Amino acid sequence: MSAVEIIRAKRDGRELTAAQIGEFVRAAAHGEWPDYQLSALLMAIFLKGMTVDETATLTRQMADSGKVLDLSDIPGVKVDKHSTGGVGDKVSLVLAPLAAACGVTVPMMSGRGLGHTGGTLDKLEAIPGFNVNLTEDQFREALRNVGVGMIGQTAEVAPADKKLYALRDVTGTVESIPLITASILSKKLAEGISGLVMDVKCGRGAFMKTLPDARALADSIQRVGTANGLKVVTMITAMDAPLGRAVGNSLEVIEAIETLRGQEPDDLMELCVRQAEAMARLAGVGADARAALRSGTALDKFREMVAQQGGDPRVVDDTSLLPLAPDRAQVTAKSAGFVGEMDAEAVGIAAMKLGAGRERAEDVVDPGVGVMVRKKPGEAVAVGDVVFEIYHRAAKGLTRAMELLEGSFTVVDLAPDVGPLVIEVMG
Amino acid sequence: MSAVEIIRAKRDGRELTAAQIGEFVRAAAHGEWPDYQLSALLMAIFLKGMTVDETATLTRQMADSGKVLDLSDIPGVKVDKHSTGGVGDKVSLVLAPLAAACGVTVPMMSGRGLGHTGGTLDKLEAIPGFNVNLTEDQFREALRNVGVGMIGQTAEVAPADKKLYALRDVTGTVESIPLITASILSKKLAEGISGLVMDVKCGRGAFMKTLPDARALADSIQRVGTANGLKVVTMITAMDAPLGRAVGNSLEVIEAIETLRGQEPDDLMELCVRQAEAMARLAGVGADARAALRSGTALDKFREMVAQQGGDPRVVDDTSLLPLAPDRAQVTAKSAGFVGEMDAEAVGIAAMKLGAGRERAEDVVDPGVGVMVRKKPGEAVAVGDVVFEIYHRAAKGLTRAMELLEGSFTVVDLAPDVGPLVIEVMG
Repeated sequence: MSAVEIIRAKRDGRELTAAQIGEFVRAAAHGEWPDYQLSALLMAIFLKGMTVDETATLTRQMADSGKVLDLSDIPGVKVDKHSTGGVGDKVSLVLAPLAAACGVTVPMMSGRGLGHTGGTLDKLEAIPGFNVNLTEDQFREALRNVGVGMIGQTAEVAPADKKLYALRDVTGTVESIPLITASILSKKLAEGISGLVMDVKCGRGAFMKTLPDARALADSIQRVGTANGLKVVTMITAMDAPLGRAVGNSLEVIEAIETLRGQEPDDLMELCVRQAEAMARLAGVGADARAALRSGTALDKFREMVAQQGGDPRVVDDTSLLPLAPDRAQVTAKSAGFVGEMDAEAVGIAAMKLGAGRERAEDVVDPGVGVMVRKKPGEAVAVGDVVFEIYHRAAKGLTRAMELLEGSFTVVDLAPDVGPLVIEVMG
Repeated sequence: MSAVEIIRAKRDGRELTAAQIGEFVRAAAHGEWPDYQLSALLMAIFLKGMTVDETATLTRQMADSGKVLDLSDIPGVKVDKHSTGGVGDKVSLVLAPLAAACGVTVPMMSGRGLGHTGGTLDKLEAIPGFNVNLTEDQFREALRNVGVGMIGQTAEVAPADKKLYALRDVTGTVESIPLITASILSKKLAEGISGLVMDVKCGRGAFMKTLPDARALADSIQRVGTANGLKVVTMITAMDAPLGRAVGNSLEVIEAIETLRGQEPDDLMELCVRQAEAMARLAGVGADARAALRSGTALDKFREMVAQQGGDPRVVDDTSLLPLAPDRAQVTAKSAGFVGEMDAEAVGIAAMKLGAGRERAEDVVDPGVGVMVRKKPGEAVAVGDVVFEIYHRAAKGLTRAMELLEGSFTVVDLAPDVGPLVIEVMG
């Protein structure tokens, strides 16, 4: 069965067999096809689609193209959460210890930020000493000792996905539901989990800008995950304005710690509680996540996790130990009323320009810079009120960030109707 | 304008601008995009199509990616013929000198055989000494002295086409009307001609197997050629059975010479006369091609052309000077009746297996081997009559060729209705 035959089959709209998909995945993982054949097939998949069965097979084969963890010797039911990425999305930092405090075992593998969205690994690394590159043995030890470990994907996980992801980026084949589904779920299957809470972000700060697109991805993940034996809960959640108030790595860690202390902000707290309870349900453990926050057990779990992974646990009680940039600037309201819309993507890009994120994969992140959203949509403002407080380092990226932030929000006369945060839940 | 933007535009079904097409063609000619981006765009073009305007622009840009001949200093109106390729298709060998004898200037650039179809260059090279690799000066001299020159495309002609053609072959993007059109016509535009007779073969021995497919290509070539200032006549002609009786290089040269002498076979003669008269019409010269055959002026022109290009002109009067393989075998009729259908593709592959053609581009062709079709569709056969006479060299490929030939025809009780040779003419 040659590469050209497989490409022609998909080009002509036929369903690929498991053997054909296996050939493609092996070729991607081991360099057995030239890139021009991989990219021709990616474009054919983009334009002709894949059935749920094909996508499920692709996902499983991509997971099996690399190391698949066997965590059966670790106590507890393993459940992870994955988000398609947003601005100010520090949910994982709260959720992983919170779910662990509820009795779930949480082997979480995350990514780094790129473009306007932040990455969990960059946030964790704002904590002095925190090591996201645990060996497998260290990761197992963390799960056994603390019930939660937060690390990056190693090079051994789903090598076929690494190859295809890089090619999709440069061949206009990113926005394909089957390919996105397989990319996300292959890496989750490789974690050895039995349950997954999937957060599909929807809105102008998200990858999926519209509800129909978000629903299509959510539906695909739900079906393909289930077909591969995962228990899945998928939530579609709003990502129009930033989540919480902090955008930037240290700032987000501080906000996560405040949330673990049971303090504000409301939207972040609500999402963490709902996702923690979904994870507990998938793990078959009854849980009251708000109680775990109020009692301090979630915060204790976070402290344990930080210590277990080499971080300085004193940050939990003294967030001034986190690095913050020394310089400040403000964006203020030019008229009175209520903050109307806020463009999360613009805020995310502003933070990136300051150094909080990456324009290119090789850029270095500054943990200390970022943006605090002092007024969120629906909140009243007077002329001169600070809407954004900017943490910058010697004005690096400041001019562009100010421009972006000034254009990122409207002030309206009547308090706007802010839609629900959790838009839909499946599973 | 980045490669990814151009790929995405076509992927989303948008019409590409001339600037975008120009970027793509330059990238193909000069290696400015990696192959995986070229192939992603080729697949998007395959699946989303191109308008006539886009195809016309692509064609012109591909022609302009390399050397474009300026033949304005050569007397006469320059007209060429191109065929999509068939089995036993030696029309060019007859037609080029015949049209030149009618007063047309014929700068013909042809290709080599691959797979089951033969190539004009391989046939010409069966003539001892014949040089198809003339320099540009030699080619101009041939056109000036004889009015006809028959050569191969140099590396300087349409380099973008060479790159894209090779990629299409290995990425499942061959059978695309816009891409086929641009590939054929870019090379013809580069010849500096003002008129073209296009022969779109249709049937089981052709690239286009069905009449709708052949019509789609014919229509595209007619429109795109016209849009680029070419006068075009397009004929759709039958390619179910081999054309004429000879399949194989020396055998086809002999048959071409017999046709130039005004001898049989009918189908080949008819096609040559009709296409010569179409070429004469495009050149604005009145012509009676049958008279040029009867009078011997076409044969004289062929003799002149052979001499001009270094070949031995005595072959014209003594075809025994052409190399023929020494060994013979026959395929005979097992029942009496009429030859019904004959599968030109099977006959073409049989000839290739004997060594008359190429399985891979690097294979060496044996000019002396081939197949003579002694009984064509519609002709009566008795049991034991020779249907195919095989010219082989020490049984090379003979077993497979015999199998193919034995399965390539039917014998039926009633004389079959053999359809018309020229199915449709446009322009």
